[in-house]
Formats: sequence, C-alpha cells, structure tokens
Amino acid sequence: MPDIILVKSQMGENIGAAARAMANFGITHLKLVAPRDGWPSESATANAVGAFDGIVSVEVFETVKDAVAPYHSVYATTARTRDMRKKVFTPTDAVSKIIQQQNTDQKTAILFGGERAGLDNDDIAMAQNIITFPTNPDFSSLNLAQSVLLLSFEYHRQNNKTDEPFVPTGKSEIATQEELNEFLNRLECELDKKRFFRNEDMRPTMLRNIRSMILRSDLTDQEVKTFQGILSALIGNKVS
Amino acid sequence: MPDIILVKSQMGENIGAAARAMANFGITHLKLVAPRDGWPSESATANAVGAFDGIVSVEVFETVKDAVAPYHSVYATTARTRDMRKKVFTPTDAVSKIIQQQNTDQKTAILFGGERAGLDNDDIAMAQNIITFPTNPDFSSLNLAQSVLLLSFEYHRQNNKTDEPFVPTGKSEIATQEELNEFLNRLECELDKKRFFRNEDMRPTMLRNIRSMILRSDLTDQEVKTFQGILSALIGNKVS
Repeated sequence: MPDIILVKSQMGENIGAAARAMANFGITHLKLVAPRDGWPSESATANAVGAFDGIVSVEVFETVKDAVAPYHSVYATTARTRDMRKKVFTPTDAVSKIIQQQNTDQKTAILFGGERAGLDNDDIAMAQNIITFPTNPDFSSLNLAQSVLLLSFEYHRQNNKTDEPFVPTGKSEIATQEELNEFLNRLECELDKKRFFRNEDMRPTMLRNIRSMILRSDLTDQEVKTFQGILSALIGNKVS
Repeated sequence: MPDIILVKSQMGENIGAAARAMANFGITHLKLVAPRDGWPSESATANAVGAFDGIVSVEVFETVKDAVAPYHSVYATTARTRDMRKKVFTPTDAVSKIIQQQNTDQKTAILFGGERAGLDNDDIAMAQNIITFPTNPDFSSLNLAQSVLLLSFEYHRQNNKTDEPFVPTGKSEIATQEELNEFLNRLECELDKKRFFRNEDMRPTMLRNIRSMILRSDLTDQEVKTFQGILSALIGNKVS
C-alpha cells in the first residue's frame, strides 16, 4: 500500500485527522516532514482518536528528499495546475497506477502539502506524478485530512474490489416458493371472495402483477408469516 | 443528483463541514431534520467557508418523514449492521444505482444520522436502501462530514464518466415516499381497527418490519394503487 507523507503540516489537529482517515481505510504508514508544531503532538493524538495506537506508525524527517528516498514512485497532490511537465492523474487513475505498481513490488508514496499553501514547487519536483482532485471549479477547497481520506478510500475501494457488502438476513431464512405460493393462493382466494377481480380478462395480468410485487422483495419466512397475519387481520379472522 | 439529509445533527460545525464537502463535488441541496442547535447557525456558516453562498441551498424539516416525502428512493447511511431486511450497498454500488435512477428521472436522497449515535431504527425504516462504508473493521469511525465527503466524491467520480449504461425501468413511475407512506399509514390504521398489534411493545418493531417489506420492492405508483385496492377489498369496502 502507499505511504502517506505530510510535508510541513501546521496543525497537530490535522495530522491526527489525517491519521484517522488513513486508519479508516487501512493505510498504515505515515511520514511527517518538518511538522511545524513538532512531534509527538497532543492535539494530533486527540484528533487521531486511537489511530496511533497500533494502527498507524509515524516517522519524522527533516526534508522531503530524505522522506521519499525509499520509494519507486512518488505522487504529489496539488489543487493548482503547475507549470511542470509531470503526469497528472485523478485520484482514481493514480490509485489504479499505484496498485499496478504494488503488484510489481514497487513502493509508492503520496505527498500532501501544508494547510495554507500546499506543496511548493521544490517539493513537487521530488515527485514523478501529480494528483489533482476533480473538485467543483467554483469551490475547490479540500482540507488536508479530507484529501488524505479521499485517497485512502479510493485505494481501499480499488484494492478490495471483490469484497461484497454484508447483507443482513437476520435470523430468518429466505422463504421457499412453497411458502410464497401458499400466501399468494390464499390472497387470491380472499380477493375472489371480495370480488376484487371484477374483470375476468384482467385477472391473469393482475395476479402476475401482485406476484411480481411480492416476489421482488426476497421475503423471509418470518415476513411471509407477517403477511399471512396481516391478511388474517384484514379479513377479520381472529389473529391466532 | 442526490439530495443530502442530515437528521438531528448536533453541531453547527458539522453541518457546515458537510455543506463544504457537498460543494466540493457539486452536490447542491441539503435538508436538515430537527438540527439540535437550530438554523441558521453561525458555526455552520463559518465551517462552510462559503458553501452556503449560492452553492448549497438548505431546507429545514421537523421529521424524517416530511423530509423524504418527494423522493423515489432513499438511502440510509449506517456503520452498524441492523437487523432489518434492506438492501445494503457500498458507497460505490449505491452511487451507481443512484445514477441509474437519475437517468430515469427518479429523485434520490441520502440520510445521515447525528454525530453520536447515527440514525435510529425508525429513521432507517424510512429508507429503501442502506449504505455502509467499507472501513477497516478495527477502526471504523467516520465523522459526519467525512461520510458526506466520500459519497459526494464518489457521486462526482461516477457521474463524470461518459460511458455510464442507461437502465430503463418501464412505463410506470416509481412511487414517491409520500405515496408509500399514505398506503402504510392506512394499512396501520386498518390493522389497528382489527387489533393486529396485540402487544404495544412489539408495535414499533412490527411496523418497521412491515415498512421494510414494502419499501424494499421499489414499487411503482401503479403498484401502490394495486396494494391500496387489495387493502380496500380485504377490509370489505366496495372496490371503486
């Protein structure tokens, strides 16, 4: 996974918030270059809400050059277009390239600048690639922790493409077709008694539509029982 | 584009930060349900750094039900798994579905809960779908503005791809929450008359389960009318 390098960050709060964002999406190595308020920092620890406790490790460096020394490929984040001939990526394309690189054992890092002015031209010169965020041109201010969050999220998203979201079914099991048909037949019968199908020609279409509404929900057996209970109540049977 | 609904947000700062995140990625309509510190809010304005100046508009509602009335499909964000049978999406899959829905003129909204406890079960029951963030299981705390940021980013990312597939839904229109709630309220009232809810303690859970079964199907307005007709028939009214 890529390492995160914060260059001349001003506020400990933002370092903590960045670490928290990394921890949320499983990015675990943070480098600080010349943090203005020093390191360690109480405000960073407070804002990290536990991210520094065994999840995100921290190293401090004096210069960007020292911090980027071990990487095969470095990405600099910047809001403004620079007059430099470098490859410019969206977060999505950058992460896609980072994952290709990690698959060939290349080490990568992403540089983020200070809160006020971002990375300066000398910092950017240390990187192979530039990442710009595709923000609204009329409103493009992203803060440091937000930029780290978006890249961490994007990395996690692309790197975990196969893991499906967990779908809770609760304790109940999905109903069988037999249970569903039992309910649908009973409903049809009750609707018949109430003369719901006034027009015999429309009857098959209406029944198909009703079936479609019920089947579409992947009802559990418990839910079918609830529908049975509703039906019993509505037709005035004593609910047993 | 989806609207963003913040339910019982506690701090104006977070409302402002959420609006800023929306503005960054071009999401422009915000609804507040019962904001604890009231509205307008100085702290929200300060943290929005200009997002409320002509980019993000705000409406305030007293209940979730009122706020979600105009939408065809509502997504509830939650960190914890709930014992409710609803479709659960990652942000990426949810946004993909939201874009398909907007391509067929369906209006969508995303619900976010308060800072401390998130959405409660009654709020979630108002939604068709659940979004959970695929965070690190050992470190899953995302704050409100970060959650809004990630979904806004993901929406912008997917919506600016040129090659999105167009998915048709057929001739009927998807029902609005207002149409669905009208039916559900009537059903509840009729079930009351028939003493369906024998145990007052179980009543809220049963109502949520019934709601969940109905909302899950993405019913069309025509199908809601069919359900209304079925209900009329079963309670013995003459079908008109």
